Amino acid sequence: METISNNELKQIRALHEKKYRDESGLFLVEGEKLVAEAESSGFGIVRIIRRDEVGEKLMERISTMSSPSPVVAVVRKPAPSEHVPGGLCLALDSVRDPGNLGTILRIADWFGVDCIFASPDSVEVYNPKVVQASMGAIFRKKLIYCDIVEKCKEFRAAGLHVFGTFLDGSDIYASELPREGLIVMGNEANGISREVAAECDCRLTIPSFGGGSESLNVSVATAITVSEFKRRWK
Amino acid sequence: METISNNELKQIRALHEKKYRDESGLFLVEGEKLVAEAESSGFGIVRIIRRDEVGEKLMERISTMSSPSPVVAVVRKPAPSEHVPGGLCLALDSVRDPGNLGTILRIADWFGVDCIFASPDSVEVYNPKVVQASMGAIFRKKLIYCDIVEKCKEFRAAGLHVFGTFLDGSDIYASELPREGLIVMGNEANGISREVAAECDCRLTIPSFGGGSESLNVSVATAITVSEFKRRWK
Repeated sequence: METISNNELKQIRALHEKKYRDESGLFLVEGEKLVAEAESSGFGIVRIIRRDEVGEKLMERISTMSSPSPVVAVVRKPAPSEHVPGGLCLALDSVRDPGNLGTILRIADWFGVDCIFASPDSVEVYNPKVVQASMGAIFRKKLIYCDIVEKCKEFRAAGLHVFGTFLDGSDIYASELPREGLIVMGNEANGISREVAAECDCRLTIPSFGGGSESLNVSVATAITVSEFKRRWK
Repeated sequence: METISNNELKQIRALHEKKYRDESGLFLVEGEKLVAEAESSGFGIVRIIRRDEVGEKLMERISTMSSPSPVVAVVRKPAPSEHVPGGLCLALDSVRDPGNLGTILRIADWFGVDCIFASPDSVEVYNPKVVQASMGAIFRKKLIYCDIVEKCKEFRAAGLHVFGTFLDGSDIYASELPREGLIVMGNEANGISREVAAECDCRLTIPSFGGGSESLNVSVATAITVSEFKRRWK
């Protein structure tokens, strides 16, 4: 059996928390499939720990999951990147749920969204639940934390439209949707903030067909919106 | 303070488990908003328990949530219903994740899907996580557990098409989609089972736009598929 010193174990377990992920620039990736994707992604792999090598008991302490993964990798975050306004991009205005962010990354990857921007108060992309829900899309899609109001202004200054989904916008199915632009998605409970809403020059709605539900889940709304943009230019 | 006898507490706590929900025909609904929806839904309300009345400690034992709800209702399941083949319906072939089923109910409600069928091995609709994720759609949408192969045969015998989403189907955006029919969605890991796939007379695909992701989450795929059917007949 390989051994892990108490000090190493402590450092790895610290990566369960955002504070230490921020400090170290490292995060955890769990499961055979995701670790294989990390290895082929070009992200720096610091260490791979296997249950077969360290034993079940130690793995329970290393893993963030309730049933511990057979393999956990310590992975280096990529350097922050930039994106010149252009292409079809998503801007997340305070999306807080890790499952939603992971699912949105997967949607963005499927539909070839060029870049995802997220407000600084959105959930951290290296949160283990985001990594898991992204099913590997985290290794392929660029996500940039930035001021969303500023990003909207940049897109508009580049002659592109900024789209927001609202309950009182125009019917997305009947709207003209360009090939490029910025699509803003809002917070789970409160939607798009007032400051960001003021920067959206196109207000869209996914029409309801008579049900009593007041809204759609943000990842579901993202999927329908991006699907509708993409199919127009297929 | 209202008191709850140990016996009553035991009965309510038993409803955290499927076995006792099955036996009693009762389930739990938590949170101000959902309990209000339950009350106005026509479902039978057996009892409403408020934190203000029973105290924080007791509520921690009654609630299924990690931060206990201010209010929990014991609600009677409606009698099993039937649905004559017709309208636009969903069939879930072994959808296992409670969050996915709740989200699918919410999507079905938003888009006015007529009925949802689920295979008996799908997650139970009265699971507290399904109730929560449905955001109240559980009180408005009919969900019937039944044999999906039989249901597909019934729809086809009624002259309607059965649609399945596959990785090798025809492009959904370019396909003819009727106003009525049955849309089958498959299991999170394995997709549509072979037996059910054999009953699908139309194979659809949501095309990928160049990303590396192998699939979409089942609730996301449901949203895009139903949106695409509905917009054609708006």
